[in-house]
Amino acid sequence: MSFFIGRDREARRAYGFDEVAIVPGMMTVDPEDTNTETVIGPLKFKIPFVASAMDGTVDVKFAVAMGKLGGLAVLNLEGLHTRYESPEEAYSEIAKATPESAPKILQKIYSQPIQESLISRRIQEIKKGGAAAAVSCVPKNAAHFGAVAAKAGADVLVVQGTVATARYESSRGKPLDLGRLCKELKIPVIIGNVVTHTAALELMETGCAGILVGVGPGAACTSRGVLGIGVPQITSTVDCAAARDYFFKKTGRYVSIITDGGMTNSGDVCKAFTAGADLVMMGSTFARAKEAPGRGYHWGMAMPDRYLPRGTRIHVGTTSTLEEILFGPATQEEGLQNFVGALRTCMGYVGARTIRELQLAEIIIAPEIKHEGKLFQQAQRVGMGKK
Amino acid sequence: MSFFIGRDREARRAYGFDEVAIVPGMMTVDPEDTNTETVIGPLKFKIPFVASAMDGTVDVKFAVAMGKLGGLAVLNLEGLHTRYESPEEAYSEIAKATPESAPKILQKIYSQPIQESLISRRIQEIKKGGAAAAVSCVPKNAAHFGAVAAKAGADVLVVQGTVATARYESSRGKPLDLGRLCKELKIPVIIGNVVTHTAALELMETGCAGILVGVGPGAACTSRGVLGIGVPQITSTVDCAAARDYFFKKTGRYVSIITDGGMTNSGDVCKAFTAGADLVMMGSTFARAKEAPGRGYHWGMAMPDRYLPRGTRIHVGTTSTLEEILFGPATQEEGLQNFVGALRTCMGYVGARTIRELQLAEIIIAPEIKHEGKLFQQAQRVGMGKK
Amino acid sequence: MSFFIGRDREARRAYGFDEVAIVPGMMTVDPEDTNTETVIGPLKFKIPFVASAMDGTVDVKFAVAMGKLGGLAVLNLEGLHTRYESPEEAYSEIAKATPESAPKILQKIYSQPIQESLISRRIQEIKKGGAAAAVSCVPKNAAHFGAVAAKAGADVLVVQGTVATARYESSRGKPLDLGRLCKELKIPVIIGNVVTHTAALELMETGCAGILVGVGPGAACTSRGVLGIGVPQITSTVDCAAARDYFFKKTGRYVSIITDGGMTNSGDVCKAFTAGADLVMMGSTFARAKEAPGRGYHWGMAMPDRYLPRGTRIHVGTTSTLEEILFGPATQEEGLQNFVGALRTCMGYVGARTIRELQLAEIIIAPEIKHEGKLFQQAQRVGMGKK
Amino acid sequence: MSFFIGRDREARRAYGFDEVAIVPGMMTVDPEDTNTETVIGPLKFKIPFVASAMDGTVDVKFAVAMGKLGGLAVLNLEGLHTRYESPEEAYSEIAKATPESAPKILQKIYSQPIQESLISRRIQEIKKGGAAAAVSCVPKNAAHFGAVAAKAGADVLVVQGTVATARYESSRGKPLDLGRLCKELKIPVIIGNVVTHTAALELMETGCAGILVGVGPGAACTSRGVLGIGVPQITSTVDCAAARDYFFKKTGRYVSIITDGGMTNSGDVCKAFTAGADLVMMGSTFARAKEAPGRGYHWGMAMPDRYLPRGTRIHVGTTSTLEEILFGPATQEEGLQNFVGALRTCMGYVGARTIRELQLAEIIIAPEIKHEGKLFQQAQRVGMGKK
Repeated sequence: MSFFIGRDREARRAYGFDEVAIVPGMMTVDPEDTNTETVIGPLKFKIPFVASAMDGTVDVKFAVAMGKLGGLAVLNLEGLHTRYESPEEAYSEIAKATPESAPKILQKIYSQPIQESLISRRIQEIKKGGAAAAVSCVPKNAAHFGAVAAKAGADVLVVQGTVATARYESSRGKPLDLGRLCKELKIPVIIGNVVTHTAALELMETGCAGILVGVGPGAACTSRGVLGIGVPQITSTVDCAAARDYFFKKTGRYVSIITDGGMTNSGDVCKAFTAGADLVMMGSTFARAKEAPGRGYHWGMAMPDRYLPRGTRIHVGTTSTLEEILFGPATQEEGLQNFVGALRTCMGYVGARTIRELQLAEIIIAPEIKHEGKLFQQAQRVGMGKK
Repeated sequence: MSFFIGRDREARRAYGFDEVAIVPGMMTVDPEDTNTETVIGPLKFKIPFVASAMDGTVDVKFAVAMGKLGGLAVLNLEGLHTRYESPEEAYSEIAKATPESAPKILQKIYSQPIQESLISRRIQEIKKGGAAAAVSCVPKNAAHFGAVAAKAGADVLVVQGTVATARYESSRGKPLDLGRLCKELKIPVIIGNVVTHTAALELMETGCAGILVGVGPGAACTSRGVLGIGVPQITSTVDCAAARDYFFKKTGRYVSIITDGGMTNSGDVCKAFTAGADLVMMGSTFARAKEAPGRGYHWGMAMPDRYLPRGTRIHVGTTSTLEEILFGPATQEEGLQNFVGALRTCMGYVGARTIRELQLAEIIIAPEIKHEGKLFQQAQRVGMGKK
Repeated sequence: MSFFIGRDREARRAYGFDEVAIVPGMMTVDPEDTNTETVIGPLKFKIPFVASAMDGTVDVKFAVAMGKLGGLAVLNLEGLHTRYESPEEAYSEIAKATPESAPKILQKIYSQPIQESLISRRIQEIKKGGAAAAVSCVPKNAAHFGAVAAKAGADVLVVQGTVATARYESSRGKPLDLGRLCKELKIPVIIGNVVTHTAALELMETGCAGILVGVGPGAACTSRGVLGIGVPQITSTVDCAAARDYFFKKTGRYVSIITDGGMTNSGDVCKAFTAGADLVMMGSTFARAKEAPGRGYHWGMAMPDRYLPRGTRIHVGTTSTLEEILFGPATQEEGLQNFVGALRTCMGYVGARTIRELQLAEIIIAPEIKHEGKLFQQAQRVGMGKK
Repeated sequence: MSFFIGRDREARRAYGFDEVAIVPGMMTVDPEDTNTETVIGPLKFKIPFVASAMDGTVDVKFAVAMGKLGGLAVLNLEGLHTRYESPEEAYSEIAKATPESAPKILQKIYSQPIQESLISRRIQEIKKGGAAAAVSCVPKNAAHFGAVAAKAGADVLVVQGTVATARYESSRGKPLDLGRLCKELKIPVIIGNVVTHTAALELMETGCAGILVGVGPGAACTSRGVLGIGVPQITSTVDCAAARDYFFKKTGRYVSIITDGGMTNSGDVCKAFTAGADLVMMGSTFARAKEAPGRGYHWGMAMPDRYLPRGTRIHVGTTSTLEEILFGPATQEEGLQNFVGALRTCMGYVGARTIRELQLAEIIIAPEIKHEGKLFQQAQRVGMGKK
């Protein structure tokens, strides 16, 4: 929907998770009868959840655990596990740092060079554990690290930058040829992040198996605050899902949409699928798992960026096992546990038996702005658990 | 009103209590001349208020008091009163629990089996007290418990799940046949909850006497936060009321609309009627009554749900008698007392002599977002009582 | 602008002070050259400010001071000054009451009967002080008190209820005939409150000289919270001003629009005039004056209402003289002082030389919702005084 | 976009920084390849940043530092530097004042008369330092001070009032003739502030080289709160940029748009350029520099205004060098450092190689209103640095 924001200048209205809700269906089904399977290229997953490539969240052990539970975890090829043979000490140092010293300690720890041999070793460790090995790197390392990883038996390569486009221009050397990468590597490639229909379509044409959707989805995001850049996540997911459907009609190839970022609870996750996602990727949610290596902390991508600082360490706490986070039981009502159960219950209430049916459910715009006169009452009622 | 939330995807804008207000009429009438009567099927009520089936709110004594004052209270057939001959001790244990221990204590107390004989006894106790006996259960218990209750003399059966539809599919046995239930039971059946026009119409066709409107009405609701599901309550009430009017034109049968949930004060209640409600159902408001058994606490439905946890205990305090809550006098200006008086004053100001005339009053969209620059002034002014 | 809030149901979008701003003009004028005069029927006022009939704000001394400064203050005929020959002690008792005891003390003090002779005396005292005497009462007392007041030399009668309509029906005796009242009293009559175009037009046809605009303007208002009733103040002022202009075209009689309520600072006051007001009425703003009798407190209408409680005592503090509140200098930037100066500066910036020219200035919708990510920065910046 | 805000009355919807975001491009470029040059009339600047004429921010030393870094700083001709030969003591007194005593101390310090000879001396000092000398004064001093400044070698004159229009009427003497001023002075003149298309066009016709855009951009602004006047900054920038483009088509002369006010971090700055700005002017951001003379404080324009008080002293702290503020590195993620780096990164992500290409990037409406149910989670997540 476009509005004039000034003379001769139109802008679309975009929507975020907190502005929409899912409408119950005309018929309902038993959650036990729902199916949460999804695919990325040739790979099938029992649950449509991906743990993002953050060192505080994913290590080999976590990736194996996630694989056994039916999902996927992405290991960061530019993180601690390829810089240190045994990163235990680094994790310990990060967890012990004071808030003031954390940025410098992170900087120091990540200045250690990446060892190529460790890329292979980590992948083999995950494979030996019985899980699919998904690994990630930034575009400029993708050609080289991708080849090493594929050779080592990786199942998925994730090429991830803040904003990805099929066309990138630089006077500092030839940029990554995504089409060639997807063609030469024999494994599925996921590219991100992207938020617009046209950019998504161009990426799909490179031959990738999936795209990560999400740039500055929320107002508290760094991209939005520092660069002014971002698109609320419901609209970007809808737009990229429309690109997927268009591309599928045209080519017969189904490129998976992975909504990445901005989701804070299981309600947001359900909305992401209703908006068109095939999978969701989350970081801090999984950093709360007992299996996560971060000891209750997580932090951003490790690559130092001259312009855009990343890497603030966040304390999220360790709340429960990964299995409890995914399958419950939930002991509170905040939607931070039992994500799969919540998803299946939601599917039941909208009458969707599969994720693709859930993508067709009705969304309603429901911002629910509270009157200030009621805020003092609200304070008491937060978490009240009304139906 | 539909807006595009992304490419090829439209969504309606829905409205909640805090986004609308009632417009005064071109003529006004004396509140003393207004009539608040309403019906559910063949039953008449002097005041259009229903206490919801929460154990913290309704026991036999409360149901009798509510009936004498002209309204209706629903007793939970799956709650303490059918699990314990004398539930006093259970109430005491719940009230004494610490916030941390409450969930587990609730779980333990509600693991006691339901005794069928107690269903009959509670109904007879309410009837003996001179009030209409309304009882509730979940769909899967409705056929059996409904028959027991009807036989014991119940006046109304409420069949309540988070989301109710006429069509429900499960591979785990045959689901409840609502049409058959309504036909076989000789008493009026109320079904809920529902929020859409089409689902409401299908439920009306089953032969029910009333429907409960409300799923995830507010952003702080569990359904919204955990499942992403919900429709703001003004829009759902308007939509279901339109279904009622359509169904009445087509069949001559008037199915009552009972708005359930999301109302925090008498202003919200007046808005619910203006949106089309025939009655309103409230839980925490009545839990504050001296007659309520919860001792200042209330808690959700007792049925444990594998996917969606319920039952957080909320402290609401005990503020006044049920009569004061309904008929005043109000000693403060927050709209938490004198609900009937407020309703009649509202009717007077819009010139409505009956609830059905009030349903025709004009609604205006009035979100009243405060500037942050004024928030510090606001803090002092909350409850200031300006006209 | 109408939107569908549900099936077959439209609602207009209304706007409040915090959602709009005034657009500077294509040309500007020197504030010294602006003229703030206004009229109510045959009466002229140098400044378009009216102090509302609240006992905490207006007594004889205050009314005289306000008159000398060019504005108007309304004395409550049902307040302390007609119940007590010397209300000093009552004021003292109210100021000394604890927050808990205040409601009961107010109730007791206002249970004293009204003495008709004091009506005349107060009016004569104001007249003797050299100011116009404006007095107010509720509709049911208007015929009788109005006659007494007019005989005593009152200049203006204000007939004020929460919602006023030309047509009011009651089985409890014949209601006030506003047309007859306006005709029989030889003084201008102001009627209120009203918020809609049609109700305003019908009131104008009764022969009144002015109408008070404002019912439940804000979300924190009692009418809105308790009754659900209200219209944001910009829209109600625009609607009633349109009625005034239509009525003037049709009859040649100019009925003044007095915006009453919801204004918290001089910015809101300027917006009210831009929306079409001829005068503004304020209570708490003037209660802060050293001349106000309330000793830093003010409280609502004294008439007890069985359904709608009023009269919470609010502490506003005593900040400065009435002259400073009206004419400055302002020592802070919150717009709570120098209302006339702010109005004239505003007129200068939009290029309006008179109040009626200001009514033609451009309004823009400018809600300025702050991102939560910036709120912590905002806290520091409140009152920062950026242009 | 216009909406009816009441009967027969339309109002445009305006947008502020917090309601929009920038959409990433279909292609991206290397930030190293972007060019941030901009012009004001014949003058070229390497970076499009201007420090506003506030005494807490700009003195001679600061102006020289800013010039060397490629930007521009404006010295206030009515401030401390033209009232005191050596203003050190005045700065010290202001910094030491208690919050309560600050307004009076500011008033006293600024009551010292302006010495014409100091105008020339300050300009020569800046020129000697190797930077462009930009100076500012209010309209009534512009003819005289402008001539003195031009003679002393000033490069830019800024004529700044709260609201500037080409036409200003006053009975108190002949107002400034802007056309004549621009013609007679041989140096570029910048005029402000302005927010509408028509007023901007009329100012451009006077012959000025740039206009300052911004009146009451935010709800916390003094102009908005005290006078009700203001236009959100995205809309005013778009409107004035459209005037610039129209005027350029018509006359071939390019008048620079300088967005002034309301920007709190680098994200807002990027949005201002995307909305059409050629440069941005900031005060408090630069007051945080070690080079700023205010010692961690800044305060408004010094000219006392009878109607509109200014001059509240604000504590912003001293955070880093001007070079760090402009070019980083940023040590946190709040967008208060490395403004040029953020701008170039943003340009890269939207695929803009120049500021004028950035002006063509897509804007999206993205208010991102948070649900109250999530606010407690938000508190922990502020500054979390999610992509």
